[in-house]
Amino acid sequence: MNCLVGQSGGPTSVINSSLAGVIKASFDNNFKKVYALLHGIEGLLTNNFVEIDKEKYLKTNSNKKLQKKPSSILGSCRYKLPEDLNAEIYVKIFDKLKELKITNFVYIGGNDSMDTVDKLNKYMSINEIYWIKIVGCPKTIDNDLFGMDHSPGFASAAKFIMNTVKDIRTDVDIYSLKTVTFVEVMGRNTGWLAAASYLLNESSKKDIVNLVYISEKSVSKDQILEDIKEAHKKEPNLIIVISEGFMDEEKFFEHVEYRSYDEGFNHPIISGISRQLSEYVYNKMGLKTKAIELNITQRTNHMISKTDADEAYLLGYKAILGSLTGTNIVPVINRVSDEPYEIVYSYVESDTISNKEKFLPKDWVKTNDILREKICKYVKPLVCGEVIQESENGIHKYIELEDFIK
Amino acid sequence: MNCLVGQSGGPTSVINSSLAGVIKASFDNNFKKVYALLHGIEGLLTNNFVEIDKEKYLKTNSNKKLQKKPSSILGSCRYKLPEDLNAEIYVKIFDKLKELKITNFVYIGGNDSMDTVDKLNKYMSINEIYWIKIVGCPKTIDNDLFGMDHSPGFASAAKFIMNTVKDIRTDVDIYSLKTVTFVEVMGRNTGWLAAASYLLNESSKKDIVNLVYISEKSVSKDQILEDIKEAHKKEPNLIIVISEGFMDEEKFFEHVEYRSYDEGFNHPIISGISRQLSEYVYNKMGLKTKAIELNITQRTNHMISKTDADEAYLLGYKAILGSLTGTNIVPVINRVSDEPYEIVYSYVESDTISNKEKFLPKDWVKTNDILREKICKYVKPLVCGEVIQESENGIHKYIELEDFIK
Repeated sequence: MNCLVGQSGGPTSVINSSLAGVIKASFDNNFKKVYALLHGIEGLLTNNFVEIDKEKYLKTNSNKKLQKKPSSILGSCRYKLPEDLNAEIYVKIFDKLKELKITNFVYIGGNDSMDTVDKLNKYMSINEIYWIKIVGCPKTIDNDLFGMDHSPGFASAAKFIMNTVKDIRTDVDIYSLKTVTFVEVMGRNTGWLAAASYLLNESSKKDIVNLVYISEKSVSKDQILEDIKEAHKKEPNLIIVISEGFMDEEKFFEHVEYRSYDEGFNHPIISGISRQLSEYVYNKMGLKTKAIELNITQRTNHMISKTDADEAYLLGYKAILGSLTGTNIVPVINRVSDEPYEIVYSYVESDTISNKEKFLPKDWVKTNDILREKICKYVKPLVCGEVIQESENGIHKYIELEDFIK
Repeated sequence: MNCLVGQSGGPTSVINSSLAGVIKASFDNNFKKVYALLHGIEGLLTNNFVEIDKEKYLKTNSNKKLQKKPSSILGSCRYKLPEDLNAEIYVKIFDKLKELKITNFVYIGGNDSMDTVDKLNKYMSINEIYWIKIVGCPKTIDNDLFGMDHSPGFASAAKFIMNTVKDIRTDVDIYSLKTVTFVEVMGRNTGWLAAASYLLNESSKKDIVNLVYISEKSVSKDQILEDIKEAHKKEPNLIIVISEGFMDEEKFFEHVEYRSYDEGFNHPIISGISRQLSEYVYNKMGLKTKAIELNITQRTNHMISKTDADEAYLLGYKAILGSLTGTNIVPVINRVSDEPYEIVYSYVESDTISNKEKFLPKDWVKTNDILREKICKYVKPLVCGEVIQESENGIHKYIELEDFIK
């Protein structure tokens, strides 16, 4: 009985917490060997995997340390398995899994990775393979995964964005002239992360975030100018948080596709809306404007939400538990109440999640006031709790893969 | 005997520490009233100032809290006083100072603000004004101030850059294809901040920063391509830290002047080199590239170096002490030794600092290896020590001006 774990898709600040949960559950359930794929499913095809050293892992307190290190310590891939289940690659994958005597395989990832889990299970079903269970474990900062209240990774990204925007507010306020600062945040086609920044206003006498534009709701470019004019009546220095996927009604602003990683799943890389809006408002209104793209640090940063890390850990743990009896399942979080914050864990099938997107609910985005009220209740409990990073000479100390593998 | 303090120029993460030092020293030396200008010297001309409430200040522990809040809590300005000392504005300024019975005025700022201090003192000298002492207190993240070992603000910015680049490294390493990530940092015409990132490599088995380009040293654009080719032999995912003021030998890359604040001192706003280099390398080498501009969060962020905050506080304190006997002076830090880190404080005249720029020493920038060795020794002691921020519901809690003024 050997176990295998891999990480896939874009990194988050707590995807290593889920890995820690998987490893700990494997030890607790007496798996003989615990293997970890490097660079996701690709690692299986290229013989790129390592074995976790139980003694080292326990001795170096790796379980705690993994929960403090952002990003995917095992590396990642964007590898899309073919739709044709007769493809040669499936035979290769299961040959390799059999060779390693893997009985339980956990794949930590987003909706694309759940597509991988689903396809592998479909292959197993068709070919009557019963010697292995393959399950998923969810993650994404975008919070766009179906079938769950929220996804691990989202809260830490939201927390980073909020605290960064709070620092930006201390900067933009120092001059008294009228300015507009656009802060572009991730979220792909959804506005969860941008909307979450509204929570900043709850703990402040004066609004820290003045306007939010989300991917789910287009407005005209004239409306944007109107909104700015209106907001300037109350406050000289505006901060506008905008989803990377926001598009004006006329599709006037183009999304610059700048150079980034190859994406096997063919998602367009969206970026640049803040820069274009910044130029547009400067030209149209003659105001001093600035565009700040928070870029990849929002998905891999040290400012981790303790709640998020704890939940991610438990989901990893529960992925292994689930795989002891079931296959093609994914542990998820369901919310019972906002205040006091109460959740329960359950399992959904991986095709509940794969290749779908969860948007901000339609009744939340009707007006800005409703969105603000709803998202604050939703996000508030998730960003709580601090993960204190250890430093040496002022620089964070993170665990390395070498510290706990054979 | 009343005292006046103002903040000017770009913000830093510890300029409020200097303010705390000034306020505490004023209390300790029995000033009757402590006034604070809002938006620097402009606040004096527009009657925009406040009085510190000693009772409130002490009761709310403001002295400690100010040392945790980034940016200039009093606001700032970029106001250049006229060269002509007969200008009406000087009469206005000194009339106002007299009306408020100010005997000691501390202006916290960079080389432009020291120009203000110097001009006011020249006016005092010509007009035989002896009832007031006007002194400066240094700050800048760029570390380009003359007459001192290093300037308050630099270390916290360097610390933020290092820890952010460390997080970026965890992100870029997840895929195994060849990539180049450019990280653009501030520093105006100097490379102190970019070079400081070399310190990351000291605490890491593998280089976190692969190449550094600084403003003081142009290289040809072909050389950049060569450097990347060479570095890729050892490491697939390169991180290149680049000064905002870097220019290639042929001046092939234009510096995009994007919309930002008005600058009374007419410094060009430099930005965009990372984006242009990123496009260029993509087009020439067909590599996946990414440009990350750290933007204003590097100068106003919560990740404060304790050493930096302590030193900034002491300089503020010493500015008041100095003003008890002298005028037109600025307290500065001189280094006695790197390890153990030892400094002494002294005073220089404000025209030592005003309108000048301190570059990386010529013998440091001869080769990358020398620069790396020299800058690591220089920066290492400065970034040490953590300032733990308090949070409420996951969001940092900062002091507000209203908490300690009348």
